[in-house]
Amino acid sequence: MRDLSNDHDWLSINTATVRQQADFVGIVEACAQRGIRAVSPWRDQVAHVGLERAVRAVRDAGLKLSGYCRGGMFTSDSAHRPDMIDDNRRAIDEAAALGAPCLVLVVGGLPQYSRPGSQPSKDIRAAHAQVTDALAELLPYAQNAGMPLAVEPLHPMYAADRACVNTLRQALDICDALDPGRTGSIGVAIDTYHVWWDSDVWKQIARVGRDRLLAFHVCDWLVPTKDMLLDRGMMGDGVIDIPAYRREVEAQGYNGFIEVELLSNDWWSRPLGDVLDTVIARYKTVV
Amino acid sequence: MRDLSNDHDWLSINTATVRQQADFVGIVEACAQRGIRAVSPWRDQVAHVGLERAVRAVRDAGLKLSGYCRGGMFTSDSAHRPDMIDDNRRAIDEAAALGAPCLVLVVGGLPQYSRPGSQPSKDIRAAHAQVTDALAELLPYAQNAGMPLAVEPLHPMYAADRACVNTLRQALDICDALDPGRTGSIGVAIDTYHVWWDSDVWKQIARVGRDRLLAFHVCDWLVPTKDMLLDRGMMGDGVIDIPAYRREVEAQGYNGFIEVELLSNDWWSRPLGDVLDTVIARYKTVV
Repeated sequence: MRDLSNDHDWLSINTATVRQQADFVGIVEACAQRGIRAVSPWRDQVAHVGLERAVRAVRDAGLKLSGYCRGGMFTSDSAHRPDMIDDNRRAIDEAAALGAPCLVLVVGGLPQYSRPGSQPSKDIRAAHAQVTDALAELLPYAQNAGMPLAVEPLHPMYAADRACVNTLRQALDICDALDPGRTGSIGVAIDTYHVWWDSDVWKQIARVGRDRLLAFHVCDWLVPTKDMLLDRGMMGDGVIDIPAYRREVEAQGYNGFIEVELLSNDWWSRPLGDVLDTVIARYKTVV
Repeated sequence: MRDLSNDHDWLSINTATVRQQADFVGIVEACAQRGIRAVSPWRDQVAHVGLERAVRAVRDAGLKLSGYCRGGMFTSDSAHRPDMIDDNRRAIDEAAALGAPCLVLVVGGLPQYSRPGSQPSKDIRAAHAQVTDALAELLPYAQNAGMPLAVEPLHPMYAADRACVNTLRQALDICDALDPGRTGSIGVAIDTYHVWWDSDVWKQIARVGRDRLLAFHVCDWLVPTKDMLLDRGMMGDGVIDIPAYRREVEAQGYNGFIEVELLSNDWWSRPLGDVLDTVIARYKTVV
Protein backbone atom coordinates (compact mmCIF):
# COMPACT_ATOMS: atom_id res chain seq x y z
CA MET A 1 0.00 0.00 0.00
CA ARG A 2 1.28 3.44 -0.90
CA ASP A 3 2.37 5.84 1.83
CA LEU A 4 0.23 8.95 1.35
CA SER A 5 1.52 10.87 4.35
CA ASN A 6 4.32 12.86 2.72
CA ASP A 7 2.57 14.62 -0.15
CA HIS A 8 -0.72 14.68 -2.02
CA ASP A 9 0.58 13.62 -5.43
CA TRP A 10 -2.23 11.10 -5.96
CA LEU A 11 -5.11 13.23 -4.77
CA SER A 12 -7.84 14.16 -7.23
CA ILE A 13 -10.77 16.45 -6.50
CA ASN A 14 -14.15 15.56 -7.89
CA THR A 15 -15.51 18.97 -8.78
CA ALA A 16 -18.92 18.24 -7.24
CA THR A 17 -17.16 18.45 -3.86
CA VAL A 18 -16.97 22.25 -4.15
CA ARG A 19 -19.67 22.89 -6.74
CA GLN A 20 -21.40 25.56 -4.64
CA GLN A 21 -18.24 27.57 -4.02
CA ALA A 22 -16.86 28.27 -7.51
CA ASP A 23 -17.30 27.54 -11.20
CA PHE A 24 -15.17 24.94 -12.96
CA VAL A 25 -12.38 27.37 -13.83
CA GLY A 26 -12.25 28.66 -10.28
CA ILE A 27 -12.06 25.13 -8.91
CA VAL A 28 -9.26 24.17 -11.30
CA GLU A 29 -7.24 27.24 -10.31
CA ALA A 30 -7.77 26.66 -6.58
CA CYS A 31 -6.64 23.05 -6.96
CA ALA A 32 -3.55 24.01 -8.96
CA GLN A 33 -2.60 26.63 -6.36
CA ARG A 34 -2.49 23.90 -3.73
CA GLY A 35 -0.45 21.48 -5.81
CA ILE A 36 -3.42 19.19 -6.38
CA ARG A 37 -2.56 17.37 -9.59
CA ALA A 38 -5.93 16.10 -10.82
CA VAL A 39 -9.66 16.77 -10.93
CA SER A 40 -12.71 14.84 -12.03
CA PRO A 41 -15.21 17.26 -13.62
CA TRP A 42 -18.96 16.98 -13.73
CA ARG A 43 -20.67 17.56 -17.05
CA ASP A 44 -22.93 20.36 -15.90
CA GLN A 45 -20.00 22.25 -14.40
CA VAL A 46 -18.10 21.91 -17.68
CA ALA A 47 -21.14 22.98 -19.69
CA HIS A 48 -21.55 26.05 -17.50
CA VAL A 49 -18.16 27.47 -18.60
CA GLY A 50 -18.20 25.80 -22.02
CA LEU A 51 -16.23 22.73 -23.07
CA GLU A 52 -13.44 24.66 -24.80
CA ARG A 53 -12.89 26.93 -21.83
CA ALA A 54 -12.85 23.89 -19.55
CA VAL A 55 -10.29 22.11 -21.73
CA ARG A 56 -8.09 25.24 -21.74
CA ALA A 57 -8.40 25.67 -17.95
CA VAL A 58 -7.26 22.12 -17.33
CA ARG A 59 -4.37 22.44 -19.80
CA ASP A 60 -3.24 25.83 -18.53
CA ALA A 61 -3.22 24.57 -14.96
CA GLY A 62 -1.26 21.47 -15.95
CA LEU A 63 -3.84 19.21 -14.35
CA LYS A 64 -4.69 15.63 -15.15
CA LEU A 65 -8.13 14.09 -14.94
CA SER A 66 -9.06 11.02 -12.89
CA GLY A 67 -12.42 10.60 -14.62
CA TYR A 68 -15.38 12.45 -16.08
CA CYS A 69 -18.76 12.47 -14.33
CA ARG A 70 -20.99 11.23 -15.66
CA GLY A 71 -22.61 9.18 -18.36
CA GLY A 72 -25.41 6.72 -17.79
CA MET A 73 -29.06 7.06 -16.87
CA PHE A 74 -29.57 4.20 -19.32
CA THR A 75 -33.07 3.28 -18.22
CA SER A 76 -35.94 4.88 -20.10
CA ASP A 77 -39.05 4.11 -22.04
CA SER A 78 -38.62 3.52 -25.77
CA ALA A 79 -39.53 7.11 -26.65
CA HIS A 80 -36.62 8.45 -24.62
CA ARG A 81 -34.08 5.86 -25.75
CA PRO A 82 -32.62 7.74 -28.76
CA ASP A 83 -31.98 10.81 -26.58
CA MET A 84 -30.38 8.61 -23.97
CA ILE A 85 -27.96 7.11 -26.48
CA ASP A 86 -27.12 10.52 -28.01
CA ASP A 87 -26.59 12.00 -24.60
CA ASN A 88 -24.12 9.26 -23.70
CA ARG A 89 -22.25 9.60 -26.98
CA ARG A 90 -21.81 13.30 -26.24
CA ALA A 91 -20.54 12.44 -22.77
CA ILE A 92 -17.95 10.12 -24.33
CA ASP A 93 -16.86 12.84 -26.76
CA GLU A 94 -16.55 15.41 -23.98
CA ALA A 95 -14.55 13.00 -21.84
CA ALA A 96 -12.18 12.45 -24.76
CA ALA A 97 -11.84 16.20 -25.42
CA LEU A 98 -10.93 16.76 -21.77
CA GLY A 99 -8.43 13.91 -21.73
CA ALA A 100 -10.26 11.89 -19.10
CA PRO A 101 -8.99 8.35 -18.48
CA CYS A 102 -12.56 7.05 -18.18
CA LEU A 103 -16.21 8.05 -18.27
CA VAL A 104 -17.87 7.28 -14.95
CA LEU A 105 -21.36 5.82 -15.35
CA VAL A 106 -24.30 6.19 -13.01
CA VAL A 107 -26.52 3.69 -14.73
CA GLY A 108 -30.00 4.90 -13.76
CA GLY A 109 -32.72 3.39 -11.63
CA LEU A 110 -36.34 3.08 -12.71
CA PRO A 111 -37.08 4.84 -16.04
CA GLN A 112 -39.28 7.59 -14.61
CA TYR A 113 -36.38 8.86 -12.46
CA SER A 114 -33.56 8.14 -14.89
CA ARG A 115 -35.13 9.87 -17.88
CA PRO A 116 -37.99 12.04 -16.57
CA GLY A 117 -41.09 11.79 -18.69
CA SER A 118 -40.59 8.08 -19.27
CA GLN A 119 -43.50 5.76 -18.54
CA PRO A 120 -43.40 4.81 -14.85
CA SER A 121 -42.34 1.25 -14.09
CA LYS A 122 -41.74 -0.87 -11.00
CA ASP A 123 -39.89 -3.55 -12.95
CA ILE A 124 -36.38 -3.43 -11.52
CA ARG A 125 -35.42 -6.55 -13.48
CA ALA A 126 -36.31 -4.78 -16.73
CA ALA A 127 -34.15 -1.87 -15.58
CA HIS A 128 -31.23 -4.22 -15.02
CA ALA A 129 -31.63 -5.58 -18.52
CA GLN A 130 -31.83 -2.09 -20.03
CA VAL A 131 -28.54 -1.14 -18.41
CA THR A 132 -26.74 -4.08 -19.95
CA ASP A 133 -28.38 -3.46 -23.33
CA ALA A 134 -27.42 0.22 -23.38
CA LEU A 135 -23.84 -0.56 -22.37
CA ALA A 136 -23.62 -3.12 -25.15
CA GLU A 137 -24.82 -0.53 -27.64
CA LEU A 138 -22.45 2.20 -26.43
CA LEU A 139 -19.35 0.08 -26.00
CA PRO A 140 -18.22 0.14 -29.68
CA TYR A 141 -18.62 3.93 -29.74
CA ALA A 142 -16.55 4.24 -26.56
CA GLN A 143 -13.90 1.88 -27.89
CA ASN A 144 -13.68 3.96 -31.07
CA ALA A 145 -13.16 7.06 -28.97
CA GLY A 146 -10.61 5.27 -26.81
CA MET A 147 -12.72 6.06 -23.76
CA PRO A 148 -13.05 3.31 -21.14
CA LEU A 149 -16.47 3.05 -19.49
CA ALA A 150 -16.41 2.86 -15.69
CA VAL A 151 -19.56 1.35 -14.20
CA GLU A 152 -19.97 2.71 -10.70
CA PRO A 153 -22.05 0.58 -8.35
CA LEU A 154 -24.06 2.99 -6.23
CA HIS A 155 -25.29 2.39 -2.70
CA PRO A 156 -28.53 0.36 -2.74
CA MET A 157 -30.47 3.32 -1.30
CA TYR A 158 -30.19 4.84 -4.80
CA ALA A 159 -31.58 1.79 -6.65
CA ALA A 160 -34.91 3.42 -7.50
CA ASP A 161 -33.83 6.87 -8.58
CA ARG A 162 -30.15 6.84 -9.52
CA ALA A 163 -28.57 3.47 -10.22
CA CYS A 164 -29.84 -0.09 -10.16
CA VAL A 165 -26.29 -1.47 -10.21
CA ASN A 166 -25.63 -1.60 -6.49
CA THR A 167 -22.85 -4.06 -5.79
CA LEU A 168 -19.38 -4.60 -7.17
CA ARG A 169 -20.38 -8.18 -7.93
CA GLN A 170 -23.22 -6.98 -10.15
CA ALA A 171 -20.98 -4.48 -11.97
CA LEU A 172 -18.33 -7.12 -12.61
CA ASP A 173 -20.93 -9.58 -13.89
CA ILE A 174 -21.86 -6.94 -16.49
CA CYS A 175 -18.20 -6.47 -17.43
CA ASP A 176 -17.81 -10.24 -17.81
CA ALA A 177 -20.87 -10.41 -20.04
CA LEU A 178 -19.89 -7.52 -22.32
CA ASP A 179 -16.13 -7.81 -22.40
CA PRO A 180 -15.13 -11.37 -21.67
CA GLY A 181 -11.74 -10.76 -23.27
CA ARG A 182 -10.98 -8.02 -20.71
CA THR A 183 -9.91 -5.42 -23.27
CA GLY A 184 -10.02 -2.67 -20.65
CA SER A 185 -12.79 -0.86 -22.50
CA ILE A 186 -15.24 -1.43 -19.66
CA GLY A 187 -14.50 -1.63 -15.95
CA VAL A 188 -15.60 -0.24 -12.61
CA ALA A 189 -15.30 2.80 -10.41
CA ILE A 190 -15.13 1.85 -6.72
CA ASP A 191 -16.32 4.41 -4.17
CA THR A 192 -15.93 3.58 -0.49
CA TYR A 193 -19.25 5.32 0.26
CA HIS A 194 -21.16 2.98 -2.01
CA VAL A 195 -19.50 -0.36 -1.26
CA TRP A 196 -18.20 -0.23 2.32
CA TRP A 197 -21.19 -2.07 3.81
CA ASP A 198 -20.91 -5.15 1.54
CA SER A 199 -19.56 -8.31 3.18
CA ASP A 200 -18.91 -9.61 -0.34
CA VAL A 201 -16.81 -6.63 -1.42
CA TRP A 202 -13.43 -8.06 -0.39
CA LYS A 203 -13.88 -11.07 -2.63
CA GLN A 204 -15.14 -8.84 -5.44
CA ILE A 205 -12.21 -6.37 -5.22
CA ALA A 206 -9.93 -9.37 -5.61
CA ARG A 207 -11.93 -10.27 -8.71
CA VAL A 208 -11.66 -6.84 -10.37
CA GLY A 209 -8.08 -7.00 -11.55
CA ARG A 210 -5.95 -4.01 -12.54
CA ASP A 211 -7.41 -3.86 -16.07
CA ARG A 212 -10.94 -3.19 -14.81
CA LEU A 213 -10.04 -0.88 -11.94
CA LEU A 214 -10.68 2.44 -13.62
CA ALA A 215 -11.27 4.75 -10.65
CA PHE A 216 -11.15 4.79 -6.86
CA HIS A 217 -13.28 7.32 -4.97
CA VAL A 218 -13.30 8.02 -1.25
CA CYS A 219 -15.49 9.73 1.30
CA ASP A 220 -17.03 8.66 4.59
CA TRP A 221 -20.38 7.39 5.93
CA LEU A 222 -21.83 9.51 8.71
CA VAL A 223 -24.00 8.18 11.53
CA PRO A 224 -26.62 9.47 11.47
CA THR A 225 -26.87 10.28 7.77
CA LYS A 226 -29.28 13.21 7.67
CA ASP A 227 -29.86 13.32 3.93
CA MET A 228 -29.69 10.37 1.55
CA LEU A 229 -27.96 12.37 -1.18
CA LEU A 230 -26.23 15.37 0.35
CA ASP A 231 -24.75 14.23 3.64
CA ARG A 232 -21.59 12.37 2.71
CA GLY A 233 -18.82 12.68 5.26
CA MET A 234 -15.29 14.03 5.01
CA MET A 235 -12.81 11.18 5.31
CA GLY A 236 -12.23 10.47 9.00
CA ASP A 237 -15.55 11.89 10.18
CA GLY A 238 -17.55 8.69 9.68
CA VAL A 239 -17.36 4.95 10.19
CA ILE A 240 -15.59 3.69 7.07
CA ASP A 241 -12.15 2.18 7.58
CA ILE A 242 -10.98 3.75 4.30
CA PRO A 243 -7.38 2.39 4.38
CA ALA A 244 -8.75 -1.17 4.58
CA TYR A 245 -10.43 -0.74 1.20
CA ARG A 246 -7.50 1.15 -0.35
CA ARG A 247 -5.18 -1.67 0.73
CA GLU A 248 -7.22 -4.22 -1.21
CA VAL A 249 -7.62 -1.96 -4.23
CA GLU A 250 -3.89 -1.29 -4.38
CA ALA A 251 -3.17 -4.98 -3.90
CA GLN A 252 -4.82 -5.36 -7.32
CA GLY A 253 -2.10 -3.15 -8.75
CA TYR A 254 -4.03 0.11 -8.68
CA ASN A 255 -1.62 3.03 -8.45
CA GLY A 256 -3.74 5.84 -9.87
CA PHE A 257 -5.46 8.84 -8.36
CA ILE A 258 -7.55 8.72 -5.22
CA GLU A 259 -10.55 10.85 -5.99
CA VAL A 260 -12.40 12.66 -3.24
CA GLU A 261 -16.08 13.07 -4.03
CA LEU A 262 -18.20 14.66 -1.33
CA LEU A 263 -21.80 15.65 -1.90
CA SER A 264 -22.54 17.49 1.31
CA ASN A 265 -24.65 20.45 2.28
CA ASP A 266 -22.32 20.86 5.22
CA TRP A 267 -19.09 21.08 3.20
CA TRP A 268 -20.76 23.11 0.44
CA SER A 269 -21.44 25.81 3.02
CA ARG A 270 -17.72 26.25 3.83
CA PRO A 271 -15.11 28.35 1.98
CA LEU A 272 -13.46 26.66 -1.03
CA GLY A 273 -9.94 26.93 0.41
CA ASP A 274 -10.96 25.45 3.75
CA VAL A 275 -12.55 22.44 2.07
CA LEU A 276 -9.53 21.76 -0.14
CA ASP A 277 -7.09 22.20 2.76
CA THR A 278 -9.15 19.80 4.87
CA VAL A 279 -9.26 17.26 2.04
CA ILE A 280 -5.46 17.42 1.72
CA ALA A 281 -4.96 16.99 5.46
CA ARG A 282 -7.34 14.04 5.66
CA TYR A 283 -5.88 12.45 2.53
CA LYS A 284 -2.50 12.35 4.24
CA THR A 285 -3.76 10.94 7.53
CA VAL A 286 -6.91 8.82 7.26
CA VAL A 287 -7.12 7.64 3.62
CA MET B 1 -49.35 -17.81 -5.86
CA ARG B 2 -52.19 -17.38 -3.40
CA ASP B 3 -55.15 -15.19 -4.28
CA LEU B 4 -55.35 -12.56 -1.53
CA SER B 5 -58.21 -10.57 -2.97
CA ASN B 6 -61.13 -12.26 -1.21
CA ASP B 7 -60.22 -12.03 2.46
CA HIS B 8 -57.33 -11.10 4.72
CA ASP B 9 -56.80 -14.48 6.33
CA TRP B 10 -53.03 -14.37 5.93
CA LEU B 11 -52.47 -10.79 7.00
CA SER B 12 -50.39 -10.12 10.10
CA ILE B 13 -49.77 -6.71 11.64
CA ASN B 14 -46.35 -5.93 12.99
CA THR B 15 -47.22 -3.90 16.05
CA ALA B 16 -44.59 -1.25 15.28
CA THR B 17 -46.86 -0.18 12.42
CA VAL B 18 -49.27 1.47 14.88
CA ARG B 19 -47.02 1.89 17.90
CA GLN B 20 -47.86 5.57 18.33
CA GLN B 21 -51.64 5.04 18.30
CA ALA B 22 -52.24 2.43 21.04
CA ASP B 23 -50.56 0.11 23.51
CA PHE B 24 -50.11 -3.57 22.76
CA VAL B 25 -53.47 -4.57 24.22
CA GLY B 26 -55.26 -1.87 22.24
CA ILE B 27 -53.54 -2.95 19.02
CA VAL B 28 -54.47 -6.60 19.58
CA GLU B 29 -58.11 -5.68 20.19
CA ALA B 30 -58.29 -3.43 17.12
CA CYS B 31 -56.82 -6.18 14.96
CA ALA B 32 -59.22 -8.80 16.30
CA GLN B 33 -62.19 -6.48 15.67
CA ARG B 34 -61.22 -6.36 12.01
CA GLY B 35 -60.76 -10.10 11.62
CA ILE B 36 -56.98 -9.78 11.40
CA ARG B 37 -55.72 -13.15 12.54
CA ALA B 38 -52.12 -12.47 13.52
CA VAL B 39 -49.72 -9.91 14.93
CA SER B 40 -45.98 -9.67 15.36
CA PRO B 41 -45.20 -7.87 18.62
CA TRP B 42 -42.17 -5.76 19.47
CA ARG B 43 -40.45 -6.42 22.78
CA ASP B 44 -40.75 -2.90 24.11
CA GLN B 45 -44.48 -2.84 23.40
CA VAL B 46 -44.90 -6.16 25.22
CA ALA B 47 -42.76 -4.96 28.14
CA HIS B 48 -44.89 -1.83 28.43
CA VAL B 49 -48.02 -3.82 29.30
CA GLY B 50 -46.15 -6.72 30.89
CA LEU B 51 -45.46 -10.14 29.37
CA GLU B 52 -48.31 -11.92 31.16
CA ARG B 53 -50.86 -9.30 30.15
CA ALA B 54 -49.59 -9.51 26.57
CA VAL B 55 -49.87 -13.30 26.52
CA ARG B 56 -53.43 -13.07 27.86
CA ALA B 57 -54.41 -10.37 25.34
CA VAL B 58 -53.22 -12.51 22.42
CA ARG B 59 -54.97 -15.61 23.78
CA ASP B 60 -58.23 -13.82 24.60
CA ALA B 61 -58.35 -12.33 21.11
CA GLY B 62 -57.68 -15.70 19.52
CA LEU B 63 -54.73 -14.30 17.57
CA LYS B 64 -51.70 -16.08 16.23
CA LEU B 65 -48.21 -14.60 15.98
CA SER B 66 -46.15 -14.38 12.81
CA GLY B 67 -42.95 -13.58 14.70
CA TYR B 68 -41.51 -11.70 17.64
CA CYS B 69 -39.41 -8.56 17.16
CA ARG B 70 -36.67 -8.60 17.98
CA GLY B 71 -33.52 -10.28 19.17
CA GLY B 72 -30.06 -9.46 17.95
CA MET B 73 -27.74 -6.49 18.34
CA PHE B 74 -25.00 -9.10 18.60
CA THR B 75 -22.08 -6.75 18.08
CA SER B 76 -20.47 -5.29 21.19
CA ASP B 77 -17.16 -4.96 22.96
CA SER B 78 -16.22 -7.76 25.33
CA ALA B 79 -17.53 -5.89 28.38
CA HIS B 80 -21.04 -5.79 26.93
CA ARG B 81 -21.06 -9.34 25.61
CA PRO B 82 -22.57 -11.10 28.67
CA ASP B 83 -25.47 -8.62 28.72
CA MET B 84 -25.97 -9.15 25.01
CA ILE B 85 -26.22 -12.92 25.41
CA ASP B 86 -28.57 -12.63 28.42
CA ASP B 87 -30.74 -10.15 26.59
CA ASN B 88 -31.11 -12.51 23.65
CA ARG B 89 -31.92 -15.46 25.90
CA ARG B 90 -34.70 -13.41 27.46
CA ALA B 91 -35.97 -12.55 23.99
CA ILE B 92 -36.10 -16.25 23.13
CA ASP B 93 -38.00 -16.99 26.35
CA GLU B 94 -40.50 -14.21 25.72
CA ALA B 95 -41.05 -15.38 22.15
CA ALA B 96 -41.77 -18.88 23.47
CA ALA B 97 -44.16 -17.57 26.12
CA LEU B 98 -46.08 -15.65 23.47
CA GLY B 99 -46.24 -18.63 21.13
CA ALA B 100 -44.26 -16.95 18.35
CA PRO B 101 -43.19 -19.14 15.42
CA CYS B 102 -39.78 -17.43 15.29
CA LEU B 103 -37.64 -14.73 16.87
CA VAL B 104 -36.74 -12.10 14.27
CA LEU B 105 -33.15 -10.94 14.56
CA VAL B 106 -31.73 -7.53 13.73
CA VAL B 107 -28.10 -8.48 14.08
CA GLY B 108 -26.49 -5.13 14.92
CA GLY B 109 -24.04 -2.93 13.08
CA LEU B 110 -20.86 -1.52 14.58
CA PRO B 111 -20.58 -2.18 18.35
CA GLN B 112 -20.98 1.45 19.48
CA TYR B 113 -24.46 1.59 17.90
CA SER B 114 -25.52 -1.97 18.60
CA ARG B 115 -24.69 -1.93 22.31
CA PRO B 116 -24.19 1.72 23.31
CA GLY B 117 -21.21 2.24 25.54
CA SER B 118 -19.16 -0.31 23.62
CA GLN B 119 -15.73 0.76 22.39
CA PRO B 120 -16.13 2.42 18.99
CA SER B 121 -14.92 0.43 16.01
CA LYS B 122 -14.82 0.83 12.23
CA ASP B 123 -14.07 -2.85 11.66
CA ILE B 124 -17.12 -4.09 9.78
CA ARG B 125 -15.45 -7.45 9.14
CA ALA B 126 -15.06 -7.94 12.88
CA ALA B 127 -18.76 -7.11 13.25
CA HIS B 128 -19.64 -9.77 10.68
CA ALA B 129 -17.62 -12.33 12.62
CA GLN B 130 -19.27 -11.33 15.93
CA VAL B 131 -22.71 -11.89 14.45
CA THR B 132 -21.88 -15.43 13.41
CA ASP B 133 -20.19 -16.15 16.76
CA ALA B 134 -23.17 -14.90 18.77
CA LEU B 135 -25.63 -16.88 16.66
CA ALA B 136 -23.52 -20.01 17.17
CA GLU B 137 -23.60 -19.44 20.92
CA LEU B 138 -27.35 -18.79 21.07
CA LEU B 139 -28.48 -21.50 18.71
CA PRO B 140 -28.45 -24.37 21.24
CA TYR B 141 -30.48 -22.27 23.69
CA ALA B 142 -33.00 -21.46 20.96
CA GLN B 143 -33.19 -25.09 19.89
CA ASN B 144 -33.86 -26.07 23.50
CA ALA B 145 -36.68 -23.56 23.65
CA GLY B 146 -38.03 -24.73 20.29
CA MET B 147 -37.69 -21.19 18.98
CA PRO B 148 -36.39 -20.81 15.40
CA LEU B 149 -34.07 -17.84 14.85
CA ALA B 150 -34.94 -15.69 11.82
CA VAL B 151 -32.01 -13.62 10.55
CA GLU B 152 -33.41 -10.57 8.81
CA PRO B 153 -31.12 -8.97 6.24
CA LEU B 154 -31.61 -5.22 6.59
CA HIS B 155 -31.19 -2.63 3.86
CA PRO B 156 -27.51 -1.69 3.46
CA MET B 157 -28.23 1.86 4.62
CA TYR B 158 -28.51 0.36 8.12
CA ALA B 159 -25.14 -1.45 8.03
CA ALA B 160 -23.44 0.91 10.48
CA ASP B 161 -26.09 1.35 13.12
CA ARG B 162 -28.61 -1.49 12.91
CA ALA B 163 -27.55 -4.60 11.02
CA CYS B 164 -24.41 -5.60 9.14
CA VAL B 165 -26.22 -8.52 7.50
CA ASN B 166 -27.55 -6.74 4.40
CA THR B 167 -28.30 -9.29 1.71
CA LEU B 168 -30.21 -12.53 1.58
CA ARG B 169 -27.08 -14.20 0.25
CA GLN B 170 -25.14 -13.17 3.35
CA ALA B 171 -27.91 -14.36 5.69
CA LEU B 172 -28.11 -17.73 3.94
CA ASP B 173 -24.34 -18.15 4.08
CA ILE B 174 -24.63 -17.80 7.85
CA CYS B 175 -27.43 -20.38 7.95
CA ASP B 176 -25.31 -22.77 5.88
CA ALA B 177 -22.36 -22.32 8.23
CA LEU B 178 -24.32 -22.82 11.47
CA ASP B 179 -26.94 -25.32 10.42
CA PRO B 180 -25.65 -27.32 7.46
CA GLY B 181 -28.19 -30.05 8.21
CA ARG B 182 -31.07 -27.58 7.75
CA THR B 183 -32.84 -28.46 10.98
CA GLY B 184 -35.11 -25.43 10.69
CA SER B 185 -33.69 -23.91 13.87
CA ILE B 186 -32.20 -20.99 11.95
CA GLY B 187 -33.54 -19.31 8.85
CA VAL B 188 -34.40 -15.92 7.41
CA ALA B 189 -37.03 -13.22 7.49
CA ILE B 190 -37.48 -11.59 4.08
CA ASP B 191 -38.78 -8.02 3.98
CA THR B 192 -39.47 -6.46 0.59
CA TYR B 193 -38.26 -3.09 1.88
CA HIS B 194 -34.81 -4.46 2.66
CA VAL B 195 -34.18 -6.74 -0.31
CA TRP B 196 -36.11 -5.31 -3.28
CA TRP B 197 -33.10 -3.50 -4.80
CA ASP B 198 -30.89 -6.61 -4.99
CA SER B 199 -30.35 -8.06 -8.47
CA ASP B 200 -29.17 -11.24 -6.75
CA VAL B 201 -32.31 -11.67 -4.62
CA TRP B 202 -34.21 -13.86 -7.10
CA LYS B 203 -31.47 -16.46 -7.10
CA GLN B 204 -31.22 -16.25 -3.32
CA ILE B 205 -34.97 -16.66 -2.73
CA ALA B 206 -34.75 -19.83 -4.79
CA ARG B 207 -31.94 -20.94 -2.49
CA VAL B 208 -33.84 -20.35 0.78
CA GLY B 209 -36.12 -23.36 0.71
CA ARG B 210 -39.31 -23.73 2.75
CA ASP B 211 -37.45 -24.86 5.85
CA ARG B 212 -35.53 -21.60 6.16
CA LEU B 213 -38.33 -19.25 5.15
CA LEU B 214 -39.47 -18.18 8.59
CA ALA B 215 -41.18 -14.86 7.87
CA PHE B 216 -42.23 -12.62 4.98
CA HIS B 217 -42.66 -8.89 5.59
CA VAL B 218 -44.00 -6.28 3.20
CA CYS B 219 -44.02 -2.53 2.83
CA ASP B 220 -43.02 -0.13 0.06
CA TRP B 221 -40.06 2.09 -0.89
CA LEU B 222 -40.97 5.73 -1.38
CA VAL B 223 -39.22 8.09 -3.80
CA PRO B 224 -38.04 10.33 -2.31
CA THR B 225 -37.45 8.67 1.04
CA LYS B 226 -37.42 11.57 3.49
CA ASP B 227 -36.12 9.71 6.53
CA MET B 228 -33.85 6.69 6.51
CA LEU B 229 -35.70 5.00 9.37
CA LEU B 230 -39.22 6.37 9.59
CA ASP B 231 -40.45 6.87 6.03
CA ARG B 232 -41.43 3.42 4.85
CA GLY B 233 -44.31 3.39 2.42
CA MET B 234 -47.74 1.78 2.56
CA MET B 235 -47.92 -1.01 0.00
CA GLY B 236 -48.82 0.48 -3.37
CA ASP B 237 -47.49 3.96 -2.60
CA GLY B 238 -43.92 3.26 -3.66
CA VAL B 239 -41.86 1.55 -6.36
CA ILE B 240 -41.67 -2.07 -5.18
CA ASP B 241 -43.43 -4.65 -7.31
CA ILE B 242 -44.47 -6.55 -4.17
CA PRO B 243 -46.34 -9.40 -5.93
CA ALA B 244 -43.18 -10.25 -7.90
CA TYR B 245 -41.35 -11.03 -4.66
CA ARG B 246 -44.32 -12.81 -3.05
CA ARG B 247 -44.61 -15.02 -6.13
CA GLU B 248 -41.03 -16.23 -5.70
CA VAL B 249 -41.37 -16.65 -1.94
CA GLU B 250 -44.54 -18.69 -2.34
CA ALA B 251 -42.93 -20.73 -5.11
CA GLN B 252 -40.62 -21.97 -2.34
CA GLY B 253 -43.65 -23.37 -0.58
CA TYR B 254 -44.24 -20.49 1.80
CA ASN B 255 -47.89 -20.34 2.80
CA GLY B 256 -47.69 -18.46 6.09
CA PHE B 257 -48.62 -14.96 7.18
CA ILE B 258 -47.76 -11.86 5.22
CA GLU B 259 -46.63 -9.39 7.83
CA VAL B 260 -47.03 -5.67 7.29
CA GLU B 261 -44.32 -3.69 9.04
CA LEU B 262 -44.37 0.05 8.47
CA LEU B 263 -42.16 2.44 10.38
CA SER B 264 -43.53 5.76 9.23
CA ASN B 265 -44.00 9.15 10.80
CA ASP B 266 -46.73 9.70 8.24
CA TRP B 267 -48.78 6.60 9.12
CA TRP B 268 -48.09 6.99 12.84
CA SER B 269 -49.88 10.33 12.68
CA ARG B 270 -53.15 8.76 11.42
CA PRO B 271 -55.93 7.11 13.45
CA LEU B 272 -55.38 3.43 14.32
CA GLY B 273 -58.52 2.25 12.52
CA ASP B 274 -57.67 4.16 9.34
CA VAL B 275 -54.23 2.60 9.19
CA LEU B 276 -55.53 -0.95 9.70
CA ASP B 277 -58.35 -0.48 7.18
CA THR B 278 -55.84 0.85 4.63
CA VAL B 279 -53.51 -2.09 5.28
CA ILE B 280 -56.37 -4.54 4.69
CA ALA B 281 -57.40 -2.82 1.45
CA ARG B 282 -53.86 -2.72 0.10
CA TYR B 283 -53.20 -6.32 1.17
CA LYS B 284 -56.10 -7.42 -1.01
CA THR B 285 -55.09 -5.37 -4.05
CA VAL B 286 -51.36 -4.68 -4.35
CA VAL B 287 -49.58 -7.33 -2.25
